[in-house]
Amino acid sequence: MPNLSQELNFLLYEVFDLESLFTRTRYEEHSKETVDAVLATAKSIAEDYLAPHNAKADANEPQFDGEKVTLIPETKAAWDAIAGAGFIGASHDAQWGGIQLPELAARASTIHFNVANVSTAGYPFLTVGASNLIEAFGSQEQKERYMQAMIEGRFSGTMALTEPAQGSSLADITTTAVPQEDGSYHLTGQKIYISAGDHELTENIVHMVLAKIPGGPAGVKGISLFICPKYLVNDDGTVGERNDVALAGLLHKMGYRNTTSTVLSFGEKENCKAYLLGEEHKGLAYMFQMMNEARIGVGLGAACLGYAGYDYSVEFARDRKQGRHATNKDPESPQVSIIEHADVRRMLLAQKSYGEGSIALCLLASRLVDDEKTLTDAAAKQKAFELLDYLTPVVKSWSSKYGVKANELAIQVLGGSGYIREYPVEQYYRDNRLNPIHEGTEGIQGLDLLGRKTTLGNGQLYKTFLGAVQETIIEAKTQEGLDDLVEALTRSVNLHQETTVAVTSTMREDVNLALANATEYLDFTGKLVLAWVWLKLSIAAQKGLAQNPSELDKHFYLGKLQAAKYHFEWELPEMQSQAELLKSLNSTPFDMQDEWF
Amino acid sequence: MPNLSQELNFLLYEVFDLESLFTRTRYEEHSKETVDAVLATAKSIAEDYLAPHNAKADANEPQFDGEKVTLIPETKAAWDAIAGAGFIGASHDAQWGGIQLPELAARASTIHFNVANVSTAGYPFLTVGASNLIEAFGSQEQKERYMQAMIEGRFSGTMALTEPAQGSSLADITTTAVPQEDGSYHLTGQKIYISAGDHELTENIVHMVLAKIPGGPAGVKGISLFICPKYLVNDDGTVGERNDVALAGLLHKMGYRNTTSTVLSFGEKENCKAYLLGEEHKGLAYMFQMMNEARIGVGLGAACLGYAGYDYSVEFARDRKQGRHATNKDPESPQVSIIEHADVRRMLLAQKSYGEGSIALCLLASRLVDDEKTLTDAAAKQKAFELLDYLTPVVKSWSSKYGVKANELAIQVLGGSGYIREYPVEQYYRDNRLNPIHEGTEGIQGLDLLGRKTTLGNGQLYKTFLGAVQETIIEAKTQEGLDDLVEALTRSVNLHQETTVAVTSTMREDVNLALANATEYLDFTGKLVLAWVWLKLSIAAQKGLAQNPSELDKHFYLGKLQAAKYHFEWELPEMQSQAELLKSLNSTPFDMQDEWF
Repeated sequence: MPNLSQELNFLLYEVFDLESLFTRTRYEEHSKETVDAVLATAKSIAEDYLAPHNAKADANEPQFDGEKVTLIPETKAAWDAIAGAGFIGASHDAQWGGIQLPELAARASTIHFNVANVSTAGYPFLTVGASNLIEAFGSQEQKERYMQAMIEGRFSGTMALTEPAQGSSLADITTTAVPQEDGSYHLTGQKIYISAGDHELTENIVHMVLAKIPGGPAGVKGISLFICPKYLVNDDGTVGERNDVALAGLLHKMGYRNTTSTVLSFGEKENCKAYLLGEEHKGLAYMFQMMNEARIGVGLGAACLGYAGYDYSVEFARDRKQGRHATNKDPESPQVSIIEHADVRRMLLAQKSYGEGSIALCLLASRLVDDEKTLTDAAAKQKAFELLDYLTPVVKSWSSKYGVKANELAIQVLGGSGYIREYPVEQYYRDNRLNPIHEGTEGIQGLDLLGRKTTLGNGQLYKTFLGAVQETIIEAKTQEGLDDLVEALTRSVNLHQETTVAVTSTMREDVNLALANATEYLDFTGKLVLAWVWLKLSIAAQKGLAQNPSELDKHFYLGKLQAAKYHFEWELPEMQSQAELLKSLNSTPFDMQDEWF
Repeated sequence: MPNLSQELNFLLYEVFDLESLFTRTRYEEHSKETVDAVLATAKSIAEDYLAPHNAKADANEPQFDGEKVTLIPETKAAWDAIAGAGFIGASHDAQWGGIQLPELAARASTIHFNVANVSTAGYPFLTVGASNLIEAFGSQEQKERYMQAMIEGRFSGTMALTEPAQGSSLADITTTAVPQEDGSYHLTGQKIYISAGDHELTENIVHMVLAKIPGGPAGVKGISLFICPKYLVNDDGTVGERNDVALAGLLHKMGYRNTTSTVLSFGEKENCKAYLLGEEHKGLAYMFQMMNEARIGVGLGAACLGYAGYDYSVEFARDRKQGRHATNKDPESPQVSIIEHADVRRMLLAQKSYGEGSIALCLLASRLVDDEKTLTDAAAKQKAFELLDYLTPVVKSWSSKYGVKANELAIQVLGGSGYIREYPVEQYYRDNRLNPIHEGTEGIQGLDLLGRKTTLGNGQLYKTFLGAVQETIIEAKTQEGLDDLVEALTRSVNLHQETTVAVTSTMREDVNLALANATEYLDFTGKLVLAWVWLKLSIAAQKGLAQNPSELDKHFYLGKLQAAKYHFEWELPEMQSQAELLKSLNSTPFDMQDEWF
């Protein structure tokens, strides 16, 4: 049976060596004991405050009566439990009341929340993102006034980027921020799809808003970032009068329903106060600096939903009896559990590979955040930064795409039961469909990977990635039983390099054509990245097997090796036809004319 | 802009030669004029009675108060319009009040209904299925009493196969039918997921129920088929007293909501009357004989949803302005319609290929139904039967799987708008997710194709299929501009044959292992079948282009050729890695142990 605590233990201690982080100055107060206590708390909050209302919140979505937004009351209890236990500040500095945990451990704790109830977990998730921005770029006073209240759970936060007329095109935002004599700004504009943009869970909501200061440069270079609270905050930290931010309406999502999705109007009464974060015109750069972390978060949410569906469908497939093996022609013999049918096992194994592989990928990225933040050796720090920067579009997009695929398979395992709301898996599927869209669609991630990350600094990020894969290959060669994987991964690396050279060399001649297949290149790269991740997991599993494990642990390790085999045999070989398509610079979609549709 | 009437015209007259059917005795009363009139009626009913309440029905699902099921009133108006125009009897014999249309034309008319509102269209769809069973196997008296009332739209019908403890395993059904002195039977048992199983749209509901007569053979050989009306029917055809069929409850689906999904209890009061259809113990054979048609219907519903999402997302992509081409670095230049972005074109073209390809495949199958029914040459008739029988699992599963994929892409084209209920595409996605499940899951279709159809009669069906593909290849060679497609299809046929030999030869040694990858084999075969279909469509498009078409028609034909290229370049090459997996008889999922999950 999938066991999430065992999974996290394996990843933190056997794969990503969390313990090595405790020797770093920032984390020296921590130990396996403190982290285990945090994870145990997260698990019990997930069980007691999140899982029980996941279906109820889906069936009773947020309501707006023109004055206030109402959520089912369990949401507030969950917020209080999560914030009360200090999870908003899990990775923040201790000086601000944070737990100052390694990012790897902080992220791992959110896995419990996401698996239990991803949409209620959206409130703390967004608040962490907003508070991180203030910690990174805010003034001392802004930290005291807003960030600390967020860490304490009194305020929550949002990221307000998208506007009705511009989705992915941030260059074209029209929200304006006019400087006032007191040093503040007046905001005017509308934002859409703002998650957690209104609710009554907290005393205040701190919106992190992208806007343009009149007279600044055109396009993305003229974007600044502002703090815009729902209620103004008095000097003593108490909440003052209502700011001119109005909820224009709620949007009605297919899933993820308990996280409100809002249209917000700033400055309808020409009196919306906001405060510049950092310097003018650097808003997008600030956002991008935090984007890696936000994208890991979205990827992890998707991975957790994939895992949740896997977990449920394994349980269902064990209980549900139906049919017989093809060789058994006796209709009077008892029916077997459907987990015995090879096709059901295929669907469960694929889910295991997608869900567990994505969780591992997201934690790998989180470990890189720690390295980037706390390594003292400049070269190693730079390498961690580069690797994370390269991987981010894959972390976000692979987890989202294959998380949805996993949920699709969970439905298929359940059959008719999978399609009705009387069982939980159809909700996972609906919830997860958001993830390939927000925080940059798949198309955007593809452009980021191929158009930026792959070629940046003469391919430096890409080289760093290839180097990291080589290191793992070298390590794998010292282990028994991994020869096939090593060989296949080596071949795939070569294929990837060849293909990348072919595609990027066209970029100099015809950038539009070269980028036309960027989304395919993203998936192609993802297959390689996941093979690398599965090789890492296989190394750890082989090490575990060599240490005379308990029967339970032995099954766990063998399951990991089988899921790795699945990825290498069922997913990785598709790189071949993808490579041919990419190398040929296929122009069929590119050449399609508007009138032909 | 996608134009459904133009699409149907092309398919009926330029691809599947509907006019040639008018020379056959059964259809001699018909002509292009009569069919065009029927299609025009279907289109206007779809526009006036179906499309307007598609979203409303989704938001207001059927309610059961313990006595009656309430649907939104638009459903009854739609039923009356469809039945009133004679569509229930579209392909039934004229002697029973049917229109006696070719199946090809009758199916084509349902495309208008399905694109507009697939769940309301479920009521006539199921009634047609049930009435076809009675026409094929019922007595004269049963036809008069039940079928005629269905054709008139006074009664509706259901197919009641599945039971709570046995989903796909019909061998294990436990509903019993005990013979009574008057020649009727008493049914006892429960059925689940019975679509349209209760409602107030019609005077009566005629359930076609699979049950076992005590003392009969075990397993599927002991299954009989019964007519079990909700209300008993008097000798004069009027509706009499309530039969002992009770609605135990409604199930709450993710989509397809306006078609009630029910749990029905037969004989709770030990007084549920039913009437044997045909002979004892032949129920499953009867059902199977109708299954091909029901499966085409499910495939077509899925294809239509794929098409609906394609249609909407093309429109959206034309209207929505966002971003600029990668080569345009001027942030002050106007934004372009997103249809200009290559990645959006890819997503639209893929949808076009999935949706239009599947509709064509379903109509090809419908044309085979006509040939099987009305050809006078025994050999040709047999060939049509074999080809249809071979193709059926692909028709059902490809359309369902790629219909959902198309809807997934429609969401992605719309971005945030795709995920909210304020826009229609998320509903298409939810609706369509049912189709890979009902009328035999993907796993069941895979077993049917590889375990039965491919090997039946020493591979006779498979040979017939390969022969049909050869015929198309020969015809394509006479056309300009199709050399690349001909060559790729020829290669793919060889690859498919090699792979099939490898897999089926293992079947003699280890049937469980050989069948373990049946679902993959199904998709592998689907890619070949669709390449064949796209070659057929390309032949017709080239012929059309050669005839100096109008500008509009020219765009239409060029779009078809581009969508064919898409299938050949983006989908077909995946057969290579699938072939390697299949030929290796991959056992990784098969070897996965229960305890390792």
